[in-house]
Amino acid sequence: MQIGFIGLGAMGSAMAGRLLAAGHEVHVWNRTPQRSEALRARGATVEATPAQAASRSQVVVTMVADDAALASVTFGDHGIAAGLANGAVHVGMSTVGVDAARDAAARHQAAGQRYVSVPVFGRPEAAAQGKLFLMAAGAQADLEAVSPVLDQLGQATRTIGPEPWQANLVKLLGNFMLMSMVETLAETGVVAERAGIAPATVVEALTGTIFNAPPYQNYGASIAAQRFRPAGFGLPLAQKDNRLLLAATDALGIPVPLASLLHDRFLAVRARGIGEGYDLSALAIGALADAGLRWNGQ
Amino acid sequence: MQIGFIGLGAMGSAMAGRLLAAGHEVHVWNRTPQRSEALRARGATVEATPAQAASRSQVVVTMVADDAALASVTFGDHGIAAGLANGAVHVGMSTVGVDAARDAAARHQAAGQRYVSVPVFGRPEAAAQGKLFLMAAGAQADLEAVSPVLDQLGQATRTIGPEPWQANLVKLLGNFMLMSMVETLAETGVVAERAGIAPATVVEALTGTIFNAPPYQNYGASIAAQRFRPAGFGLPLAQKDNRLLLAATDALGIPVPLASLLHDRFLAVRARGIGEGYDLSALAIGALADAGLRWNGQ
Amino acid sequence: MQIGFIGLGAMGSAMAGRLLAAGHEVHVWNRTPQRSEALRARGATVEATPAQAASRSQVVVTMVADDAALASVTFGDHGIAAGLANGAVHVGMSTVGVDAARDAAARHQAAGQRYVSVPVFGRPEAAAQGKLFLMAAGAQADLEAVSPVLDQLGQATRTIGPEPWQANLVKLLGNFMLMSMVETLAETGVVAERAGIAPATVVEALTGTIFNAPPYQNYGASIAAQRFRPAGFGLPLAQKDNRLLLAATDALGIPVPLASLLHDRFLAVRARGIGEGYDLSALAIGALADAGLRWNGQ
Amino acid sequence: MQIGFIGLGAMGSAMAGRLLAAGHEVHVWNRTPQRSEALRARGATVEATPAQAASRSQVVVTMVADDAALASVTFGDHGIAAGLANGAVHVGMSTVGVDAARDAAARHQAAGQRYVSVPVFGRPEAAAQGKLFLMAAGAQADLEAVSPVLDQLGQATRTIGPEPWQANLVKLLGNFMLMSMVETLAETGVVAERAGIAPATVVEALTGTIFNAPPYQNYGASIAAQRFRPAGFGLPLAQKDNRLLLAATDALGIPVPLASLLHDRFLAVRARGIGEGYDLSALAIGALADAGLRWNGQ
Repeated sequence: MQIGFIGLGAMGSAMAGRLLAAGHEVHVWNRTPQRSEALRARGATVEATPAQAASRSQVVVTMVADDAALASVTFGDHGIAAGLANGAVHVGMSTVGVDAARDAAARHQAAGQRYVSVPVFGRPEAAAQGKLFLMAAGAQADLEAVSPVLDQLGQATRTIGPEPWQANLVKLLGNFMLMSMVETLAETGVVAERAGIAPATVVEALTGTIFNAPPYQNYGASIAAQRFRPAGFGLPLAQKDNRLLLAATDALGIPVPLASLLHDRFLAVRARGIGEGYDLSALAIGALADAGLRWNGQ
Repeated sequence: MQIGFIGLGAMGSAMAGRLLAAGHEVHVWNRTPQRSEALRARGATVEATPAQAASRSQVVVTMVADDAALASVTFGDHGIAAGLANGAVHVGMSTVGVDAARDAAARHQAAGQRYVSVPVFGRPEAAAQGKLFLMAAGAQADLEAVSPVLDQLGQATRTIGPEPWQANLVKLLGNFMLMSMVETLAETGVVAERAGIAPATVVEALTGTIFNAPPYQNYGASIAAQRFRPAGFGLPLAQKDNRLLLAATDALGIPVPLASLLHDRFLAVRARGIGEGYDLSALAIGALADAGLRWNGQ
Repeated sequence: MQIGFIGLGAMGSAMAGRLLAAGHEVHVWNRTPQRSEALRARGATVEATPAQAASRSQVVVTMVADDAALASVTFGDHGIAAGLANGAVHVGMSTVGVDAARDAAARHQAAGQRYVSVPVFGRPEAAAQGKLFLMAAGAQADLEAVSPVLDQLGQATRTIGPEPWQANLVKLLGNFMLMSMVETLAETGVVAERAGIAPATVVEALTGTIFNAPPYQNYGASIAAQRFRPAGFGLPLAQKDNRLLLAATDALGIPVPLASLLHDRFLAVRARGIGEGYDLSALAIGALADAGLRWNGQ
Repeated sequence: MQIGFIGLGAMGSAMAGRLLAAGHEVHVWNRTPQRSEALRARGATVEATPAQAASRSQVVVTMVADDAALASVTFGDHGIAAGLANGAVHVGMSTVGVDAARDAAARHQAAGQRYVSVPVFGRPEAAAQGKLFLMAAGAQADLEAVSPVLDQLGQATRTIGPEPWQANLVKLLGNFMLMSMVETLAETGVVAERAGIAPATVVEALTGTIFNAPPYQNYGASIAAQRFRPAGFGLPLAQKDNRLLLAATDALGIPVPLASLLHDRFLAVRARGIGEGYDLSALAIGALADAGLRWNGQ
């Protein structure tokens, strides 16, 4: 299959590599061209613009950093919309806001083009092995058209609904669940420490038994060890997603007080100078500071 | 082994039954005597007082409702402390507060008696099959002395520390993690519903993939279906445990804002008349009400 | 003095009337022209566009509903910027966001025009009597140029700083203080009621003695009597201002947890269908509902 | 009138001095006897025990630090209850919890004795001039019997209800209102500072106009100047009162989320080592720390 792939960060590169390995012909484009070279060496065609990549593909995947990047590569000069072939489908897999997804769908539709949202859960290593979890939303026929791509990338796909933005909302909710878990583990850890019990002991006792899911175990271990770098899910990206969720829920008219609490935690942690390079687990610095506890390096 | 067992609610009965099935001689006592009869039929000796049960046992387990019940069966008239044999060990397995556990340990110690705390995670069905998770704290020698009992009841035991109350704190932290999960799922569910996606679809998409741990799946399904009765972990008991955690953290001098948020949620839900007979999952009624959504029956 | 006045809601009409009564020549414009008639009868000149009003004035005041209205009357077709005379000053007195004010200042400046922000505290009756409190920010010379207007409208003016948006931020902070007061009185009232004391008794005891400031007394009386209509400071407008403050503080990177709590209260109250026509005091419905108490009409 | 006065801290001494100056015969007792000497010099009779002071008085006032002190001087050995003359009235003016007041009333009643609660608002200087605000609750006849004492101490008395504890609850609610005001001013101040406006400018602009009540002005000035010592209303005492309010509202079954937020603020500030010697205004250190701002000395 001819597949366009726009956005070659750590995640995008791993996904495009997976598609190449499966025998697809992949047309790649990235804002900073150097990142395309490794994929060229693996057989990808490097294209000059998103429009050009789109014009040669049946499916175009975007995996970019944020709302602005999605709008730019899609509707900017020489963007996907300018080249998307008749009948081809744009699959937005980035973690973007509900409004950005709604906008992309509407503008594609107005141009007689097809768009679906399929954001993902998982790290680059999982992407390279086709082990992502995919949240898919859009018209049934469009989702079917892109299923060969999705099947390569994910170990499981869940269909959320007919509106592309619905999948983006579910992705934001999943990230909210992760952040809530981190805050929960952070508060648990400081209580343990103040009570004279090693946080690692408590974390292992709980996440090795009743809470034996990988996210609990991984975040729990990082928080207990105060190992806040390097970033897996970067703190600033997580903060962005928290803001996107709050924007979506505000528009829906719903209070989500736990997400509000997380919003204030992000701000307090970042006001202490914790940002780029730090993992979401560094959110725990909020609970540590409020408990009068020190953390590594400070 | 001669084992005293005090407190025959759903959980205590299942645990005592497990010990009987394993061939131990179990001396039972319950405040309302009728509950002893089913165990008598299975071979237990029904004793007239906790003191009498204690006097005939090497290990005495308590599994009672709250701090007051623990103090009463242990240090009240004809309580355990009045009968505990020289060298025997009292194993407190109830979910009680840190102060109650500290008090029990101190008073037993002052009397030259041995006490350990081993609160449990799991439902009665798990107890009947010896599949509980056990959090154990106390003197090493005392924990070893009771290990034949623990091995029968639990699929895994974690040693928390030398002070019995430390295990009770970890139990309260584990329950806090459950309540935090419930609030997270509740907020997730109302966002889904207001966005026109069935809560069950979102819950399954997330707890069938990245959050694939049983508590997520079970609470998520209950919340999505608004199935708040019958109670597994009863709402009033959960509220009690939240209060015990806040009392412990207040004494330690630590803010736990997520636990505070839960505290206010419990109050708001109970002020709507939701209490006895409802499960912890009914905490979701708080998020539903604040989103202007109705729930089954109201 | 020749004064342009754009925006003739209850507040703008009272302010323009005050300026007319003081002998100024006032050139008015309003989106819905009928509202200009009462002022024409009092001597105002009704202009066809904001540009025309601006072209005939030394000072142009805007008193409009929100950010979008300010941008429209200022930079839209036939807007103020298209007519503002050389040396004349635009005085933005609306309650708008920090970004809107910053944008207005920058665009006027780029056009070689003068802009200051002077948002106000007070009700229309106070405006009619020149008893408003004015928060002023901008270049010193520009503020001096408009002082004859400010002196007619306000009983006191405070100079905040050289950047117009700074006054808008202070206005938002003042509104935050009002909303915080309302939440405080609401929680106080429900505690009183549940304790069997008439809320009016408690409110009077506290706001007639130690908290004897008019906002405490007025909001306290409304809350105690559950008199949530008609609107003085309308609930939806207050919610808008809370959002503007949160947008400003988010951009500054500061958590303001009390403002976050208010944000969630607004959403919860509005999700119950309370909105247009209700006063800010109706925020108390949040506390009432969470305490399981009824309110008038529901 | 013969008046017993138990508890001679800064507040109690000023009150007892006021009563002496008005010509009453005052029988004083204090736990640390040295504090009685200044009053002896002004004409007071120093008594050996609370019981003795009570036995010689028609009205006995208590002004002590907390619940435990009230219970001790009233029902401990040689306490007030052991000496209170037939028909005399005990006036509890301390800031104590609802349960402590309820207990005092019940035990006095069981002994056929009279008790009313009349907690006060105001500083020692106001007490010395009879300018306190008094919240009074109890049987009407009992309140009338002590009115000569109240009239000397307060510029105004409000009658709350027939149950003594109701006045204590209103006192706690008034203190809650002060703490809420402090948090509001603290958040306002950090926003100003981060926006490049001197907090003092913003505080004066708002508390010199629309919020022109003395508590706003005094706390606002302290927070703007980061003048957190010496203590007027001490931080630990304020924290104690916040806890007493939360205990009372928890018992009533009502969530008070703003009071919960304050509870967590107190803990976070105290965990930084801020405690004895600091004023309630030091609660602002929470907002400062979360905004990444420094404060005097740290």
